[in-house]
Amino acid sequence: MRIGLLGAGRIGRIHGGNVAAHARARLVAVADASAEAAGSLAAATGARVDTVEAILAAADIDAVIVSTPTDTHADLIERAVSAGKAVFCEKPVDLDAARIRACLAVVERAKGKLMIGFNRRFDPSFAAVERRIADGEIGKVELVTILSRDPAPPPASYVARSGGLFRDMMIHDLDMARFLLGEEPVEVHAVGSCLVDPAIGEAGDVDTAAVLLKTATGRIAQISNSRRATYGYDQRIEVHGEKGLLAAGNRHATTVIFADARGYATDPALPFFLERYAEAYRAELDAFVAGVLDGRPLAPTGEDGLKAQILADAATESARTGKPVRLAA
Amino acid sequence: MRIGLLGAGRIGRIHGGNVAAHARARLVAVADASAEAAGSLAAATGARVDTVEAILAAADIDAVIVSTPTDTHADLIERAVSAGKAVFCEKPVDLDAARIRACLAVVERAKGKLMIGFNRRFDPSFAAVERRIADGEIGKVELVTILSRDPAPPPASYVARSGGLFRDMMIHDLDMARFLLGEEPVEVHAVGSCLVDPAIGEAGDVDTAAVLLKTATGRIAQISNSRRATYGYDQRIEVHGEKGLLAAGNRHATTVIFADARGYATDPALPFFLERYAEAYRAELDAFVAGVLDGRPLAPTGEDGLKAQILADAATESARTGKPVRLAA
Amino acid sequence: MRIGLLGAGRIGRIHGGNVAAHARARLVAVADASAEAAGSLAAATGARVDTVEAILAAADIDAVIVSTPTDTHADLIERAVSAGKAVFCEKPVDLDAARIRACLAVVERAKGKLMIGFNRRFDPSFAAVERRIADGEIGKVELVTILSRDPAPPPASYVARSGGLFRDMMIHDLDMARFLLGEEPVEVHAVGSCLVDPAIGEAGDVDTAAVLLKTATGRIAQISNSRRATYGYDQRIEVHGEKGLLAAGNRHATTVIFADARGYATDPALPFFLERYAEAYRAELDAFVAGVLDGRPLAPTGEDGLKAQILADAATESARTGKPVRLAA
Amino acid sequence: MRIGLLGAGRIGRIHGGNVAAHARARLVAVADASAEAAGSLAAATGARVDTVEAILAAADIDAVIVSTPTDTHADLIERAVSAGKAVFCEKPVDLDAARIRACLAVVERAKGKLMIGFNRRFDPSFAAVERRIADGEIGKVELVTILSRDPAPPPASYVARSGGLFRDMMIHDLDMARFLLGEEPVEVHAVGSCLVDPAIGEAGDVDTAAVLLKTATGRIAQISNSRRATYGYDQRIEVHGEKGLLAAGNRHATTVIFADARGYATDPALPFFLERYAEAYRAELDAFVAGVLDGRPLAPTGEDGLKAQILADAATESARTGKPVRLAA
Repeated sequence: MRIGLLGAGRIGRIHGGNVAAHARARLVAVADASAEAAGSLAAATGARVDTVEAILAAADIDAVIVSTPTDTHADLIERAVSAGKAVFCEKPVDLDAARIRACLAVVERAKGKLMIGFNRRFDPSFAAVERRIADGEIGKVELVTILSRDPAPPPASYVARSGGLFRDMMIHDLDMARFLLGEEPVEVHAVGSCLVDPAIGEAGDVDTAAVLLKTATGRIAQISNSRRATYGYDQRIEVHGEKGLLAAGNRHATTVIFADARGYATDPALPFFLERYAEAYRAELDAFVAGVLDGRPLAPTGEDGLKAQILADAATESARTGKPVRLAA
Repeated sequence: MRIGLLGAGRIGRIHGGNVAAHARARLVAVADASAEAAGSLAAATGARVDTVEAILAAADIDAVIVSTPTDTHADLIERAVSAGKAVFCEKPVDLDAARIRACLAVVERAKGKLMIGFNRRFDPSFAAVERRIADGEIGKVELVTILSRDPAPPPASYVARSGGLFRDMMIHDLDMARFLLGEEPVEVHAVGSCLVDPAIGEAGDVDTAAVLLKTATGRIAQISNSRRATYGYDQRIEVHGEKGLLAAGNRHATTVIFADARGYATDPALPFFLERYAEAYRAELDAFVAGVLDGRPLAPTGEDGLKAQILADAATESARTGKPVRLAA
Repeated sequence: MRIGLLGAGRIGRIHGGNVAAHARARLVAVADASAEAAGSLAAATGARVDTVEAILAAADIDAVIVSTPTDTHADLIERAVSAGKAVFCEKPVDLDAARIRACLAVVERAKGKLMIGFNRRFDPSFAAVERRIADGEIGKVELVTILSRDPAPPPASYVARSGGLFRDMMIHDLDMARFLLGEEPVEVHAVGSCLVDPAIGEAGDVDTAAVLLKTATGRIAQISNSRRATYGYDQRIEVHGEKGLLAAGNRHATTVIFADARGYATDPALPFFLERYAEAYRAELDAFVAGVLDGRPLAPTGEDGLKAQILADAATESARTGKPVRLAA
Repeated sequence: MRIGLLGAGRIGRIHGGNVAAHARARLVAVADASAEAAGSLAAATGARVDTVEAILAAADIDAVIVSTPTDTHADLIERAVSAGKAVFCEKPVDLDAARIRACLAVVERAKGKLMIGFNRRFDPSFAAVERRIADGEIGKVELVTILSRDPAPPPASYVARSGGLFRDMMIHDLDMARFLLGEEPVEVHAVGSCLVDPAIGEAGDVDTAAVLLKTATGRIAQISNSRRATYGYDQRIEVHGEKGLLAAGNRHATTVIFADARGYATDPALPFFLERYAEAYRAELDAFVAGVLDGRPLAPTGEDGLKAQILADAATESARTGKPVRLAA
């Protein structure tokens, strides 16, 4: 599968490297607003540098990976599917649900192939939890707990254009909640505080937050987020079902234990998402390539992207108004 | 310290045995509506069987432990402090906050000594977390997560007169949240479902629930409860602060690990509160005896009992109405 | 069961307290060369102070616990069984195997009841490993690893009259190896070094040692010992069988985990044998009382005591000569 | 660095793939007795297929990786260093210590660059333990425990030409013992049994073994090996020093925990060396490439290969004779 990469920033470089190393895919071209970013990635992977337009028009490109800034995603998805390319797009499709709906309508009309980059679904541990739930190991799901903590707050400048913590950070956990609950949440209650960095509060956002979700049949999910974790990137889930518990936790650089009078000490958690989700990014690409080449449905779908965004919007509103938000099932 | 025990049921027998084995206390008398229950405990501990009236009037009794049914607690506290006895009373003081206030007023006027039995504060691990927070190990507290799951649902008959899950079960976790947050919650949002036993739903209660609490300065606590845990009694806490994380988990009967092709397996968690909190009950009694004999303030106080009850009432209302409840700080 | 305690030192006080708290036993009398030691224990437990002679002659005493200095054990066992008392004796019976044999012959002739205090067999985790081996969980045992490390070296004065590390400390592990191997070792190879405290070397002993045992059918056990562990009392076992692995480890005072940039830290192991084996001492007494009262065979037997001593002698010789020692099966 | 690969078997393919993916190296040519093996690896990596002779003579090749059958290693090392190539050779250099000495003499005379493939030294956890010992975290090393268990026995045909368990399997652990002890063993005592597969015994080998090593200053190492582990590839180390303990354990495919009435269960250990040491093989190649390109000393050295072989010979002899073998320091 011949792939063009749109966007050679931090995430784009991960995808580019993974495509270059993939047995069934080839990185053909790279586009980026920064000629230097595009050039260095192209050089490292043997791809050519090209414009977005040229990549979308290229006959030797079957699919594109969209890892440009968020506000360009919907446009690029529409143009790419219209040009007959399969599309893998980083989350979110857009910060505005109406815009996402319009984009998905275009994809629908074009019978386009679209996959959304909720990378955590491909974490080996989280994926195994979902698969084992599907296999019936814990029976019906009753309660899901998801914790997600970044090692350090982003700059306030980033926060200002991020859509806020619920849309920027918790959207991953909201998608994970849907993935694990097996049902759509119909009620969202959120609280948020600024406890980590006053500059985030001044930018109108929160850095510490929690959400309660409830589905139509009464399943419950709780999510907590923080922009601070002194001990590494903290990403954990717990799923309680009628027959038992499935939980998945963090990875560490080594298995070393050191013991002295202060006790037993292990390594911190892996530092951030590049390390923690390295395998997830590879598995995600694998799913995209295999899905397109083998003609299987792609997932997470555009609909998954839309639904996570609607939950993030609801959480944002709930935290602002102090009232739960009800959603259609 | 010479102690009279009012109530020789399941919890009463724990307290009675602990008093009998305590180096600074002696179990003098036992009262119970069931002559058999009182008699067998008295026989095992060398105490005499007596009526409540006689115990409250006895010159050779310095303190009473109240472990009778909930609806007698407030009366017995009032009578006992009026008779000059120090009082240890199992939670809750009463299911009605107004009644608790009235009772505490009597205690206040009598300058009575009262300690409320929130046993979990004395669990060695939970107590260590609180002490280490107080010592500044994690700096300011930001987010608290408390999980509490019973191994199996109680009979529906019990549920009917229990005050409901929030007042009967989650009250422990609400007290723990106050213990760990270091601030009073000012907002309570609760959701509850009946997923475990339909008979509980028919009795008007829930068996699966979660609560979000927020304090005036924005600290957040999340609590989850379930009347089901196939793997033992599950009682865990996590406290995230600006400098790090303190967490405490379950105990197991042995440290044995068995490994074969299915993986590595450890024991389930200890089965229920008698096993899990055996040490906590001893430490709790110790605190009561030492507090009275050494003239130190007793804690948890009646005020702690009242505040937990107010939170439980708020959670009950929130779950019923679907709206958060605000409280005075 | 009415029990007399011979020896009210560190271990004697544990046994005395456990007898006093036991539902089926009563501590009747205490003897000790130190009137103060005997008196304070007697006062705490409601027993009388008496001489060894009087205890052995007393009609109101059914059994004795021998926790006097090692060089008196064999004599006291002989006198007690001859007086018709059931005997629980701390390990070792004697530092000399010939003396043990003679003593056991006296017990045999008197048809006496004798149990030897290898307390670790009663540790809940180690006992569970043995039971699960017996239940066939791991099939035939192939390899046993036992690690035992004291928190700090004993004074050199103690070392001088201890019989040396192999007889004083490793004898517990040699008994554990027999307990877990299910076969008698026929070959013993030992190495020892003085790495912890030069005074121990000057006293002619080692403080760091390891042993390799092999049974007639080829099962292997390895034991390591050290007089130093900075992180608490370290006592662990692993048993590998044809179907899997059973392992048991240390206990900690709490389950608290603290995480920050240095990683995740738990408590040290419990500090020493009084804490680690508190449950084991209670279970051991329970086995003695139940065995005598219910007429079941007592174990560990005098023969177990003899065989562990023979292995300790062999290890001592092997470490001295640098050659393995063969034993009859 | 331009690399030629001699031997495209199981290990050769790992090295070939790692070279192809390495930023500072290029796989130029592959040789293998099987044209198919060489061809498929060459096709996958863009290398050419060539003869050993041609590779050793090629001007466009700076270094060779030797992963051919053991009995060709010494010859190939000699020819390659004589041809001016840097050499990375899989362990062992030869099954005969005299042949290794002769080979190393040739390397010495040629001033050749040689690195031996003891991959486990590059496992992130084991390497971290060694580095932290070097950093003084546990002070002077006192006792090392190394456990190594294969998931299943090799075919008896393999065993027959393997040199026996001590030379084929335990040699890794003997090298690890040297790596961690920081001193040369001067005494080796070994025991071995055939407990797993009678065919191995018929082939004259053992499948379960343990070794005790002692250094001149009294440091002790114990190693255990088995050709059976039902729960995955088991590879663990513990190093006890005067100031504390450093230990490193196994990796698992996921962090998933499943809990029900049988307890808490995690994944088995990773299945075998390809999975467990995937990172180690990459780090090992990295060390070879960086060492050659940056002119730093290569390690493990040929001397390391010789010393591990001498220990393996000593263990083989000790297990055969039942007597410890002394070595020069």
